[in-house]
Amino acid sequence: MKWITKISTHKKGALYIRGKKLTKLIETLSFSETIFFILKGKLPKLNEKKLLDAILVSCVEHGVEVPSAYVPRVIISTGNQINSALAGGLLTIGDFHGGAIEKAAYYLQSNKSAKEIVRESLLKKEHIPGLGHKIYKDVDPRSKVLFKLAKKIKLSGKFIGKAQNIAKEFEKNSGKKLVLNIDMAIAACVSELGFSYKLGKAFFALGRLPGMIAHTYEEVTNEKPYRRFEESDVEYIGPKI
Amino acid sequence: MKWITKISTHKKGALYIRGKKLTKLIETLSFSETIFFILKGKLPKLNEKKLLDAILVSCVEHGVEVPSAYVPRVIISTGNQINSALAGGLLTIGDFHGGAIEKAAYYLQSNKSAKEIVRESLLKKEHIPGLGHKIYKDVDPRSKVLFKLAKKIKLSGKFIGKAQNIAKEFEKNSGKKLVLNIDMAIAACVSELGFSYKLGKAFFALGRLPGMIAHTYEEVTNEKPYRRFEESDVEYIGPKI
Amino acid sequence: MKWITKISTHKKGALYIRGKKLTKLIETLSFSETIFFILKGKLPKLNEKKLLDAILVSCVEHGVEVPSAYVPRVIISTGNQINSALAGGLLTIGDFHGGAIEKAAYYLQSNKSAKEIVRESLLKKEHIPGLGHKIYKDVDPRSKVLFKLAKKIKLSGKFIGKAQNIAKEFEKNSGKKLVLNIDMAIAACVSELGFSYKLGKAFFALGRLPGMIAHTYEEVTNEKPYRRFEESDVEYIGPKI
Amino acid sequence: MKWITKISTHKKGALYIRGKKLTKLIETLSFSETIFFILKGKLPKLNEKKLLDAILVSCVEHGVEVPSAYVPRVIISTGNQINSALAGGLLTIGDFHGGAIEKAAYYLQSNKSAKEIVRESLLKKEHIPGLGHKIYKDVDPRSKVLFKLAKKIKLSGKFIGKAQNIAKEFEKNSGKKLVLNIDMAIAACVSELGFSYKLGKAFFALGRLPGMIAHTYEEVTNEKPYRRFEESDVEYIGPKI
Repeated sequence: MKWITKISTHKKGALYIRGKKLTKLIETLSFSETIFFILKGKLPKLNEKKLLDAILVSCVEHGVEVPSAYVPRVIISTGNQINSALAGGLLTIGDFHGGAIEKAAYYLQSNKSAKEIVRESLLKKEHIPGLGHKIYKDVDPRSKVLFKLAKKIKLSGKFIGKAQNIAKEFEKNSGKKLVLNIDMAIAACVSELGFSYKLGKAFFALGRLPGMIAHTYEEVTNEKPYRRFEESDVEYIGPKI
Repeated sequence: MKWITKISTHKKGALYIRGKKLTKLIETLSFSETIFFILKGKLPKLNEKKLLDAILVSCVEHGVEVPSAYVPRVIISTGNQINSALAGGLLTIGDFHGGAIEKAAYYLQSNKSAKEIVRESLLKKEHIPGLGHKIYKDVDPRSKVLFKLAKKIKLSGKFIGKAQNIAKEFEKNSGKKLVLNIDMAIAACVSELGFSYKLGKAFFALGRLPGMIAHTYEEVTNEKPYRRFEESDVEYIGPKI
Repeated sequence: MKWITKISTHKKGALYIRGKKLTKLIETLSFSETIFFILKGKLPKLNEKKLLDAILVSCVEHGVEVPSAYVPRVIISTGNQINSALAGGLLTIGDFHGGAIEKAAYYLQSNKSAKEIVRESLLKKEHIPGLGHKIYKDVDPRSKVLFKLAKKIKLSGKFIGKAQNIAKEFEKNSGKKLVLNIDMAIAACVSELGFSYKLGKAFFALGRLPGMIAHTYEEVTNEKPYRRFEESDVEYIGPKI
Repeated sequence: MKWITKISTHKKGALYIRGKKLTKLIETLSFSETIFFILKGKLPKLNEKKLLDAILVSCVEHGVEVPSAYVPRVIISTGNQINSALAGGLLTIGDFHGGAIEKAAYYLQSNKSAKEIVRESLLKKEHIPGLGHKIYKDVDPRSKVLFKLAKKIKLSGKFIGKAQNIAKEFEKNSGKKLVLNIDMAIAACVSELGFSYKLGKAFFALGRLPGMIAHTYEEVTNEKPYRRFEESDVEYIGPKI
């Protein structure tokens, strides 16, 4: 099997990433600068670094109630290694958990205008990814913070603009106001930084990982092994016994 | 099932992490500060943040040849989602791939002195985790950079000292010089920051994830699906057919 | 969280599956009968059991060259538990590795006729899942065996018929002969047994698991830890260093 | 990377497993016979096949309350593929969930006598894997069935004998009666069939998989996406907000 790569190589026992010596990166870059650098092959500007930080921080924690928090806890509670528990956490990321980032970014990066996106989705009676929230009806405060920051550091460009147009078009055409939720805000910021929509789940995974680590560590430190539900949590509706 | 947690909670629709509002964190913290904060419940000092950055950056990439790089590429090449590919990457972290960090940190954080650790391991003819490297015989340049940085920012304390004593004791007792490799350097730095050895694999996982993302993205962008070996890569030694 | 299930329940400390006591199943059923029973809620007839056996056996091994064989080997070689290695193996099952079963079964179970399926796919220039093989140009011998068996035990019904019509229609319309490959044969047999196409990847996973177990065990018994590629397997095409 | 294997090879486009043509296996063997064959390289006798069936059936289902049932349901509920959900299920198998099979088999296959095993564990105040059950105080009915079957088919040999001696020695030395639970019974039967204790978790994984498939399928068929806990399931004990 042959591997062709632009990412890294060895020379005289030293690793070079995107053309720079790893030891140099260790000495000079922060983690988020390195993330940008290994993905893009160039260093971020100060404002790009700041926006990437904000994107990742916005994913870091959602409460213990969500699959990407409690599944890693369950897996470590059964006696597995922490890397297996974190792997299980990544497996819970999907279309219904963090996955709207990818879908929203796909629309934002497509050639279709906000108007066309809204019209088509209303015709097909399909939900627009990144629009609406169970609790937030007026504004999603996390999106607000991301958009405010992007504006302040002059990174609020055509993608954030398109996201806002989608919300406006939707309200105009349906008469219903839906907030731009955090998935849409992340999707727009990721797009402003020039990353492909295909990395939507990957950024969510990366940003979520510290939260997963905190939860697995808390579980293994404070709890007795083996998480199982009670029989009272089960309603059996099968054949009579 | 009941979840008891100190990590986060909701109040009036807003998420609080370790007592601080998520939106505040998004506005004010970098990703590495947030990592420190969610794990420790307090903000890092500037030098702590810098050392954590260096630890994570030192894990980010090891070449496409290692399991945590090529396994995610293989998984995405079979048509799976990127989160599944990254999960597969985390599953390759183990005692023989990044796992020495946890083991070395365990020794560094134990009550045994460098002298005792070396004596016991020589008696049992057991390898000391974090000691020695296939290529580097004089010094591991990555360790050198980490130790230099830690010293410069005044975070080179008893754990790095103990690591260095282990190398000295080993040379004195065995007559053989072995370098403090990158696993030991990371283990010592993680210990200086006050993190439990139990997080060794977790820090490696987190630092590695951007490299895994870069590789899966390169694979899915540039390569045809489905990575398989050639029959010429196989030597069959089973029953004659 | 509430779980509603028809699959199993406890009564006086005993587990009942689909209404039958587990201990009774242990005493009386084979593994494949139990697989059929837990999925369907009824016992298989003798011919159904035989066909299910044949389906699962046909998935069991594909050579060490394929992702679902070598990835588990790699993961156990890095020092992980066997269950993590097998989990990694399951993650390699995807649209391009075993996934055609699900897609082919989807077509077979759809309302579209063989004629329509072929016409549409030719119009869209899309490949029909389950049609064609790299090596087998005349017949896929594994499909032949499955179809022969199904006929012999009187389970060759409308789905196998439809699969064969797809091949005939394709040849008629395109002038090109493509074999019904093993994915299509499995898809047709799974459909004959009344299982949803949604279980395509699941049957493949189940049938593959013994092969994965054999490979991980061979790896951990006979090989030194840590599988990595050589630098000579890599072609670096990134920035000059 | 070179792969050395006894398991399978190709010849003239046909796959041979342990020296036999795959198509021959499909025609002639049941799934459990094939499992035995691919792991051992020889066909099971009728009683060996029967015992392997009983072992696998005894693992198949434990109720929806256990991690290996509900975690796959959660993962498919977030919009992931069924193979990822099953992978997550395998990750929940660990020392505290199915893992006692491996540990108990390790003891049964060791050179230590039942007497020594009990004495040492009492001295170290360590629990003997496979001994005792939360509900069953007199006998574990599943173990009873397995042992009865093994006896009937003349496969109750030294390992089952040793398991029973461990229980007797334990009662004699501690004055406390503990049942041989299902993990111990499986461990003993696996040992009677000549399988290494290292396959303990693998047999459990294989036997459990049909149950996991049934649960993921039920979830995706009957439930709305995205399983999350309620805030009322959480007790927050972190910093005041």
